[in-house]
Amino acid sequence: MARKTGSHSEITGPRVRAAAQRLFARDGFAAVSMRQIAAEVGVQAGALYLYTPDKQALLFDLLKAHMDDVLSHWAAEPKGGGPQDALEAFVRFHIRFSLTRAEAVFLSYMELRNLTPEHFARIEALRRAYEDQLEAILAEGQVAGVFAVPDTKLATMAIIAMLTGVNTWYREGGRLSRGRVEQIYQDMVRRAVRA
Amino acid sequence: MARKTGSHSEITGPRVRAAAQRLFARDGFAAVSMRQIAAEVGVQAGALYLYTPDKQALLFDLLKAHMDDVLSHWAAEPKGGGPQDALEAFVRFHIRFSLTRAEAVFLSYMELRNLTPEHFARIEALRRAYEDQLEAILAEGQVAGVFAVPDTKLATMAIIAMLTGVNTWYREGGRLSRGRVEQIYQDMVRRAVRA
Repeated sequence: MARKTGSHSEITGPRVRAAAQRLFARDGFAAVSMRQIAAEVGVQAGALYLYTPDKQALLFDLLKAHMDDVLSHWAAEPKGGGPQDALEAFVRFHIRFSLTRAEAVFLSYMELRNLTPEHFARIEALRRAYEDQLEAILAEGQVAGVFAVPDTKLATMAIIAMLTGVNTWYREGGRLSRGRVEQIYQDMVRRAVRA
Repeated sequence: MARKTGSHSEITGPRVRAAAQRLFARDGFAAVSMRQIAAEVGVQAGALYLYTPDKQALLFDLLKAHMDDVLSHWAAEPKGGGPQDALEAFVRFHIRFSLTRAEAVFLSYMELRNLTPEHFARIEALRRAYEDQLEAILAEGQVAGVFAVPDTKLATMAIIAMLTGVNTWYREGGRLSRGRVEQIYQDMVRRAVRA
């Protein structure tokens, strides 16, 4: 007996996403076929189309789910009282969250160019919403006189690039613990922006 | 009459590289065929093999040429007397050089995963040689007592990631001139590391 589409989606959705993310991250979006994703999940290619209309929709889903995750987790993060505490919280959060979702972060940077213009615009808007969270902290500290930043937008982009860079070199069990890395980056960021 | 391989290579080499870089940057290494590169250059696919043994060799050539370029241009850059001047020179150089070679920089980050392990190791060694240049400046400033950096390796990675990030958002003719962007980043970096 054929399963209903609904229940089928519920069962395979997370597995389809996980398989697509793994293959896209390993081989690149362009090189991966729907057939390969289906094989990785262990279903027929036809079954995949019950879950997603096409590979583009799958990529957009992955990138959107990641940004939604970033935004909701940051919203739930304790931030302390003032802008200095909030900045420390942001640095710690961004490094920790990025390292625990390294594959999703990698994909988010690598495959932006493969989104359709409409999908790209939606992901960009979510990224901007996240950047705005940091910029608001910097602007608040500026008003309070605790930060001296010549341009809050540039400082935002500089800090996020610096923090995301950790993903390119950090290895668990390496020379420095994650906590120590977070401390060192907090120290550099604090000094870069303080009044 | 058939041309000699040597003279043929001299004629088409730069055009092959330019075409490959353009196509790899636009569509990704995996999605581009030797046939497409040949068509872009305006030669038969067979002629391409007079210049390069395969697509992998072409990718390695592009990434290696870029790193050789970075290193030789940095070596030729005026650096002033002490570590503070050298750090300002490095920030200005890295932003300016990266923005003028945006396609090569993009490719260098995007296609590392498509290098063979042996090619990857050679490119990594060149990247490390470049990172070592900045780390030496930080270490010198540390000894001289003008910088206070808890970990020169981490500061190196943080600064390079921050500077390369400019490529993702900077647009010529945008809100800020390149000179102004360089100044703002110099200011942030100087403050992040000073004693």
